[in-house]
Amino acid sequence: MSGLIDLIAEALVRVRVKRPLVHHITNFVVMNDCANITLHIGGSPVMAHDREEVEEMVSLADSLLLNIGTLSGDRIDSMVLAGRCANKKAIPVLLDPVGAGATVMRSQAAKRLLREVKISFIKGNAGEISVLAGEDAAVRGVDFAETSGDLAKVACRLAKEYNCTVIITGAVDWVSDGQSTYSVQNGHKLMSALTGTGCMAGSLVAAFAGAVEDPMLAALSGLTCFGIAAELAAKREQNPASFKTALFDEVYALNSEKIKMLARFERVS
Amino acid sequence: MSGLIDLIAEALVRVRVKRPLVHHITNFVVMNDCANITLHIGGSPVMAHDREEVEEMVSLADSLLLNIGTLSGDRIDSMVLAGRCANKKAIPVLLDPVGAGATVMRSQAAKRLLREVKISFIKGNAGEISVLAGEDAAVRGVDFAETSGDLAKVACRLAKEYNCTVIITGAVDWVSDGQSTYSVQNGHKLMSALTGTGCMAGSLVAAFAGAVEDPMLAALSGLTCFGIAAELAAKREQNPASFKTALFDEVYALNSEKIKMLARFERVS
Amino acid sequence: MSGLIDLIAEALVRVRVKRPLVHHITNFVVMNDCANITLHIGGSPVMAHDREEVEEMVSLADSLLLNIGTLSGDRIDSMVLAGRCANKKAIPVLLDPVGAGATVMRSQAAKRLLREVKISFIKGNAGEISVLAGEDAAVRGVDFAETSGDLAKVACRLAKEYNCTVIITGAVDWVSDGQSTYSVQNGHKLMSALTGTGCMAGSLVAAFAGAVEDPMLAALSGLTCFGIAAELAAKREQNPASFKTALFDEVYALNSEKIKMLARFERVS
Repeated sequence: MSGLIDLIAEALVRVRVKRPLVHHITNFVVMNDCANITLHIGGSPVMAHDREEVEEMVSLADSLLLNIGTLSGDRIDSMVLAGRCANKKAIPVLLDPVGAGATVMRSQAAKRLLREVKISFIKGNAGEISVLAGEDAAVRGVDFAETSGDLAKVACRLAKEYNCTVIITGAVDWVSDGQSTYSVQNGHKLMSALTGTGCMAGSLVAAFAGAVEDPMLAALSGLTCFGIAAELAAKREQNPASFKTALFDEVYALNSEKIKMLARFERVS
Repeated sequence: MSGLIDLIAEALVRVRVKRPLVHHITNFVVMNDCANITLHIGGSPVMAHDREEVEEMVSLADSLLLNIGTLSGDRIDSMVLAGRCANKKAIPVLLDPVGAGATVMRSQAAKRLLREVKISFIKGNAGEISVLAGEDAAVRGVDFAETSGDLAKVACRLAKEYNCTVIITGAVDWVSDGQSTYSVQNGHKLMSALTGTGCMAGSLVAAFAGAVEDPMLAALSGLTCFGIAAELAAKREQNPASFKTALFDEVYALNSEKIKMLARFERVS
Repeated sequence: MSGLIDLIAEALVRVRVKRPLVHHITNFVVMNDCANITLHIGGSPVMAHDREEVEEMVSLADSLLLNIGTLSGDRIDSMVLAGRCANKKAIPVLLDPVGAGATVMRSQAAKRLLREVKISFIKGNAGEISVLAGEDAAVRGVDFAETSGDLAKVACRLAKEYNCTVIITGAVDWVSDGQSTYSVQNGHKLMSALTGTGCMAGSLVAAFAGAVEDPMLAALSGLTCFGIAAELAAKREQNPASFKTALFDEVYALNSEKIKMLARFERVS
């Protein structure tokens, strides 16, 4: 993995030099956190969701993030408009299907977006991704007690179906582009005591996708950087709000040396 | 009170075992804080407000919180839909009438919700509750300089009128179910230097209401836990932003011992 | 400047005595931060945006802040309604034209507000203000790499055009009422690693505008107080999330002595 780790370290440098503009159409719960973490990794966040301006805004952007938490009908339409415009300009699009499987509205919104927009990345937890892949999954709210084992295969199958890169976040993260599949071990269990850490992972992947060409590299970069920052934060803080502050600080303070020393992932197929 | 204190300590254990799903339809200012504090006490928050999905989402939930801050017409309709669905499934509903008395829209929204939905808990500050109880009250924005004295009676009368549990938050909290009335002394004045502490108290009560049957126990549990966490936080931090971080950490770190040592409330009628 | 510094110190006392109610119609990203920083300086924030209640709410307020981030058509209409009502009651109005120049919708919204509402303060970054002043400016998202030099003149010209006080925030802040123009040196570069610091500066100026008559004094008070707090915070914290907590704490802990010792601004014309 040492070649890939070097590429991740270079990708972080590239984000900080380019300062990719990440257009978010995201939920109200995490907007502030996602804007800040995008800034801390080195990107530039912008939030805009009205039909009237999303096409113009995404045209300025380096990547587009669509997150279906706290959804409304208007917002789905805006996401489709922005997504199609991004497609025309070859701007990568990340879909975060928050709560897919919990309600019909969210499942249908995720499927509509996958049908009408060319999605580059689907990032969800085990429940959400399983639902999109047609697996049986009991989804309750926006949480899901993930099961191990077949997640690598679920990610791979969904990646092939939509010709994209699929990311499953959890205690272990899984990434597949349909050809190769990786597991990422970086991270810390305190992340699950905070709302929106999955959404923040999406912001980081989208920031990398706005700065590097290779989707697998962007996905692994976002996940390992976030996970390493969490591990470093958890060494200093054991309670969730202090940990959150430390996590954001550590994302800002990441560098090549930390990545090279701490990145832990492996190719599983 | 020692029997009741033991029940509160057990209620906290019960929240952490059950992880009740608390469906919030709440204002934009506090969404992130309310989601995090629900997680830290041991619950699972979900935020969803579109008419199309609120009934399905609340059907999965253990309690429903309706908060009328940053209100809109659409959102009131969603609250009524969600509330009626919760009633059918016997899921407890907490109403936080933020700003009732400040504008006609908010007063009418609160009254419509009380008319069309069976509310289990009304939680507000002295001004909001006084307005709903038909008392004279000068409400300015979402603040109110509370007056002492008759608040116990106001809470009791409103509880009888709507056959529910009424909570008045402030320097001293008051809780009445129309039969018995309690005052809660736990808390710290730094809470008033932060936005949304009243809303967060609602999230905690709703989390308890999703895990224990008795409404008075749920109310006292939420208020004492929040107040104890604030007291512990204020021992470490004297400025509001640091205090906020400490407050969230202390909610997460609460346990039976701290509750038994620090809970301070009394029955006043 | 010593006379003016004394007036700023007195203005802070006045905010804390009066507790001005600052009605915000602002974007979803910064609502929580703007509410908290308004509380910490000594004001009282309220957020309300529905057409049905904005006129009633602003009638209770001491100042009105209109921020066009995360805009929608409905919200512009509400801003116009609230703004006109504020004008009738002589309540000062601050406009924050977030992203003007990035999309046609935002530029037009800012211009409509300037046309239909008497604005007391326009506060933006170099790109946004340049766009409103008819200067060439490349605006990308909500960021802008500011150029020095003519900003004082741009501020002065726009202030004359709309007979208001114009504030340009950046590494150096510029304030002009068309008659006199000041630069403010207080501040720290870590502010740019956080989302919404410009919006927060708006909240502080609006809080002062709700407590003192003189617009130039309100503007200089808000900017120097925020900048001094940032400098004190940066002495303790070098990473952005810890810095943010320290910044909020320092706003709360500001006093006359700190202002008199640390305020740095000068009249440039």
